[in-house]
Amino acid sequence: MYSDNKIHIIEVGPRDGLQNLSGFVETENKISLIRRLAESGIREIQAGAFVSHRAIPQFSDMETVMAGLRDLHDVTLTALVPNIQGARAAMASGIRKLDFFFSVSRSHNLNNVRQTPQESLTALKIIRDELLSGTDMTVRVDFATAFGCPFEGTIKTDVILDYLKQVVSLGFREVTLCDTVGFGHPALVESVIAACRKHFPEVALGIHLHNTRGLALANALRAYDMGVRSFDAAIGGLGGCPFAPGASGNVATEDMVFMFEAMGLATGIDLPALLRASQYLHDILPDAPITSALFRAGLPGKVEFRDRQNDGC
Amino acid sequence: MYSDNKIHIIEVGPRDGLQNLSGFVETENKISLIRRLAESGIREIQAGAFVSHRAIPQFSDMETVMAGLRDLHDVTLTALVPNIQGARAAMASGIRKLDFFFSVSRSHNLNNVRQTPQESLTALKIIRDELLSGTDMTVRVDFATAFGCPFEGTIKTDVILDYLKQVVSLGFREVTLCDTVGFGHPALVESVIAACRKHFPEVALGIHLHNTRGLALANALRAYDMGVRSFDAAIGGLGGCPFAPGASGNVATEDMVFMFEAMGLATGIDLPALLRASQYLHDILPDAPITSALFRAGLPGKVEFRDRQNDGC
Repeated sequence: MYSDNKIHIIEVGPRDGLQNLSGFVETENKISLIRRLAESGIREIQAGAFVSHRAIPQFSDMETVMAGLRDLHDVTLTALVPNIQGARAAMASGIRKLDFFFSVSRSHNLNNVRQTPQESLTALKIIRDELLSGTDMTVRVDFATAFGCPFEGTIKTDVILDYLKQVVSLGFREVTLCDTVGFGHPALVESVIAACRKHFPEVALGIHLHNTRGLALANALRAYDMGVRSFDAAIGGLGGCPFAPGASGNVATEDMVFMFEAMGLATGIDLPALLRASQYLHDILPDAPITSALFRAGLPGKVEFRDRQNDGC
Repeated sequence: MYSDNKIHIIEVGPRDGLQNLSGFVETENKISLIRRLAESGIREIQAGAFVSHRAIPQFSDMETVMAGLRDLHDVTLTALVPNIQGARAAMASGIRKLDFFFSVSRSHNLNNVRQTPQESLTALKIIRDELLSGTDMTVRVDFATAFGCPFEGTIKTDVILDYLKQVVSLGFREVTLCDTVGFGHPALVESVIAACRKHFPEVALGIHLHNTRGLALANALRAYDMGVRSFDAAIGGLGGCPFAPGASGNVATEDMVFMFEAMGLATGIDLPALLRASQYLHDILPDAPITSALFRAGLPGKVEFRDRQNDGC
C-alpha cells in the first residue's frame, strides 16, 4: 500500500476523458496534454487504450502518442487493455504498466468486451505467462462495475471477493475498484472496501469514481477513510457515461487534488500547474464539458471589501 | 439533536437559491415552488429573507408569498433575518421560526449587514427580549463564514466557540455552521464540528454547504460522520457566490437526498417528487444554472443490453 498520508493520483483523462468524445483529438494535442499533466507533478498517467480501432477510433493513434512521449521520464504511462492483443500492442508501443480491465458484472463484460469475466481472467493468465515473464512490466487489474452495473444492478461483494481471490492467485497485487456507471455511494464504498481489505490485506486497492450523480468526492473521502490511497481522476472531469447522457463524467482531477491538499494530504501535484493543464484542455476542446468545480471557481483567495449588503449566508 | 439515522433536510432554495438571480421571480412561482418542495416531503423550508428591499429586491414580496402559503400545514416555513426590523416583519407575515444570521468574520459581517458580530448578537438579544417572549416562535442562529471568509481567510475555531457560547447563553439551542463561500473541506468540517460538539453538546448543530469547489457532499458526509443530522440544501443547486462568479452554488437538495437515501438513511423525502420540483424550477427559470447532478443524470435504473464495445471502465 501507499504511505499513510500520501495520495497517489492516477490521471485517466487521456483515456477515460477522451474515450466518449465524438470527435478525434489530434495526436499532437494528446501528447501535449499528457506532457502538461506530467509537468503538474502527476506520476502515473493512463495514456489511452489498446482496443479495437473500429469500436474506439479515438485510440487508433496510440503508437504515435507513445512514440511522442519517449523522452518523458519520472512518469509511468499506462494503457487500458482488455485482452492479449491489446496487451501485446501496448508493450510493443513502450507501455511498461498495463491496466487490464474486466467487469465483475457478467452482463456488462459480455456487452463491453464480448467475453465472460472468467474468459477475461483466462486472458490475464495468458498475458502473465506469455508476455510478462522476464520483463519489468507491471499490471494493475481494474474491476469495472464494482459498485453497480446498468444491467445487473448491485454486484454482490462475494462476487468481487471471488474475482479478487483469482487475481491474487495469479500473482497480481494492485487492483482498482471502478464505479463505472456512478451507482456508488459512501455506504457501499465502505462495505466493499472493508471486505476487500479484510480478506486481501496484501492488495493495494485503488478506486475509480465517476461523478454521475455528484457523489464522487464523497465516495473518494470514504475510500480514503477506509485506507485507500490510490485514486483515478480525469482532468476537467471529462468522461461521462453512455448510460446517462448529459451526466457528469469522471471525478475531476482538479477537484480531487484540491480536496486532498486542503485536508493536508500530499498529492505531489501543483494545483496552479494542474489548472494550466485544464485550461489547455479547454483550449484544444472548447466544446467539451469541463465539469471541474475548481476550474470554474478558481483557487480560494482573499478578496477586497465590496460594497454589497445582505448576502445572507 | 435529531435521531441517529434520520436526516433533517432544510430546503433553502427559495431564499439562497433565488437571492443572487438577476431577475425577479414572480410571486406566484415562488409560492408554487415552495408548495412542490413541501409535497416532496421536505418539512422545513426557508421561504425567503426579510432584508432591505433595496439591497435584495428579490424578497420585496415576502408578505404576499407568506399570505399565499397560509394553508400549508406540516411544514415549518422560516425566513432569514439579520436584525430586529427583519424579525418583526417576518413575524408579522406569519413566520414562526426565524433564521437569524451573522458572520463570525467581523469583516464579512460589517460588509454584509453593516454591523459587527457583537452588534448582531445584541440585536439577537433584543429580538429575544422584545419579540419572542410569550410567543411560540423558535430561532435558529446561522453562523456565516464559519469555514472561511473571503476577507479574513480561515476563522479560528476559538472565535466560533466564543460566539456559540454567547448564543447558548442567550438560550438558543439550534445553530447552523455555514460555508458561505465554499472554503470548507472535510478536515476543517471535522475539526470545527468536533470542537463545537465537545464544548456545547446541548446544541443541535446543522450545516449549510456551498459547492463552490465541488466539495459540498464530501463535507456533508464528514459532518454526518461527526454527528450532524441537519443539512441545508437548495433545489437545483442554485445559488452561487458573489465572490466566485460562475461557480456552483448551494449543495443541490436532489444530490444530497440521493446520497443519504442511497446510504440507507431516511430523509422522509420522495426523490421522484423532488425531481418534479427541480423540473418545475427549470420550467419557470429556464436560464438558471441547475447544477444538480441527479437532475441531469436521473435516478439509477437498469438498462437494456446495448450493442457497444470497449467502453472501458
